[in-house]
Amino acid sequence: MLAKRQKTVRAPSYRDGRSPEDPTMSDADAPTYIVDHLNRVKRRADRGHYDHETVHRLLDSGALAHVSYIVDGWPLCTPTLFWREGTRIYWHGSNSSRMLKNLSEGEPVCITVTHFDSLVLARCGFNHSADYRSVMAFGHARIVEDPEEKRRALTMMVDRFFPGRTAQLRASTQKEINATTVVMMDIERASAKIRAKGVADDDEDYALPIYAERLPVRMVIGPPESCPRLQSGVERPHNLDGYRAGRPLEEAVTEAHAAAYSD
Amino acid sequence: MLAKRQKTVRAPSYRDGRSPEDPTMSDADAPTYIVDHLNRVKRRADRGHYDHETVHRLLDSGALAHVSYIVDGWPLCTPTLFWREGTRIYWHGSNSSRMLKNLSEGEPVCITVTHFDSLVLARCGFNHSADYRSVMAFGHARIVEDPEEKRRALTMMVDRFFPGRTAQLRASTQKEINATTVVMMDIERASAKIRAKGVADDDEDYALPIYAERLPVRMVIGPPESCPRLQSGVERPHNLDGYRAGRPLEEAVTEAHAAAYSD
Repeated sequence: MLAKRQKTVRAPSYRDGRSPEDPTMSDADAPTYIVDHLNRVKRRADRGHYDHETVHRLLDSGALAHVSYIVDGWPLCTPTLFWREGTRIYWHGSNSSRMLKNLSEGEPVCITVTHFDSLVLARCGFNHSADYRSVMAFGHARIVEDPEEKRRALTMMVDRFFPGRTAQLRASTQKEINATTVVMMDIERASAKIRAKGVADDDEDYALPIYAERLPVRMVIGPPESCPRLQSGVERPHNLDGYRAGRPLEEAVTEAHAAAYSD
Repeated sequence: MLAKRQKTVRAPSYRDGRSPEDPTMSDADAPTYIVDHLNRVKRRADRGHYDHETVHRLLDSGALAHVSYIVDGWPLCTPTLFWREGTRIYWHGSNSSRMLKNLSEGEPVCITVTHFDSLVLARCGFNHSADYRSVMAFGHARIVEDPEEKRRALTMMVDRFFPGRTAQLRASTQKEINATTVVMMDIERASAKIRAKGVADDDEDYALPIYAERLPVRMVIGPPESCPRLQSGVERPHNLDGYRAGRPLEEAVTEAHAAAYSD
């Protein structure tokens, strides 16, 4: 249900989103991630999707990822902004970040992006649930060392959300670029899991005089708060028009990603 | 800034939220989680908080957690509903869930709950950021085996969101309870990290004629969608009144948690 509400997003033209070594890609129009024990959706297999289109649409409409990695035998899970180009995911942070310090040498990583869509109130406790759309993407993290790729990635980190914004900003200094670590992960395995059916009670329970509902939730943009120290005469540029109060963030982010990568 | 907008939530009375063996707890009014290399906020240490009040408030106002664990050397990160009692976190799922199958024997777990509050558009790329409030909680997961604790936990899984709802439902069958796995984790370490300052540019950049803003985002409740197969005459019960269209989910969830645990 919810998936159908989404706009279909053109595949980004910046990279073609395919890796030629992917053996499952017999149909050039429907590239799919390899499925194995790591990413196969076992529980509720009908909720699992592996095609690039579904996985990438859910990534591109999200702003926040949860990045999981292992340090000293402990799983750590850190929220962070991220962006996708083709089958590569980027994120960034300070050189002194523990997450990034621990992700420089090809460590295994799981990146999870979740769209939380509803709480589901059923007629018994067992069928209480939630609608959601999530992606788990697996790969090995590597620092972006190449200066040109790093500069381009930092541009897209901003322009992925706000196309054209980097050109409106004070240019980054070499010191700033040096102080930033950009990490990338080529997606080796990925799965999307979607529950979008609202109330789903046992057949005999529908006859009971018990109230049940789907309670939708959405991440919504609030009124923009312009910086109190703005120079006089500085107006909000029109490339931010998509980010307006009351609009679902997902819509604005999806639109921006498509615009940023179609130029 | 954002933290101050939150309602202060009474500590739940169900458990007292303290573990007597915690050596940092010299002040009985301000219990705090132990801080060590696992949970110390290193990067931006000023954003770190370890007191129970801050950590628990962020947990209790969240609905969705990201649970991270290790399987065959890979970190896995799964979104799930969760709830807290004292210094214990619960979540649940089907017996056939991979997550739960892998969390039965005291495996290390990181539970991350994130409130995403804004995108921050600064005057240079380097200072683009986001406001957020997040908790990382660490411990070892265990299956809830005791039948009474399991039954109570499943009641609170529903009533934590919707106080009094379990009493309005068709009772759970033993078969349903048997088919459900409830997992708990005593919080051994935890930290909250809060960025709530909006635009923070370099001093000299404020003089530039560049637009900057804080763009707030919020998880908002939509219009409840009552089940199309509702029996005639069945009204929405008043214990759901807190969940009304347009209200931030965080407010409703915080209020419900406080009500569920203060009876």
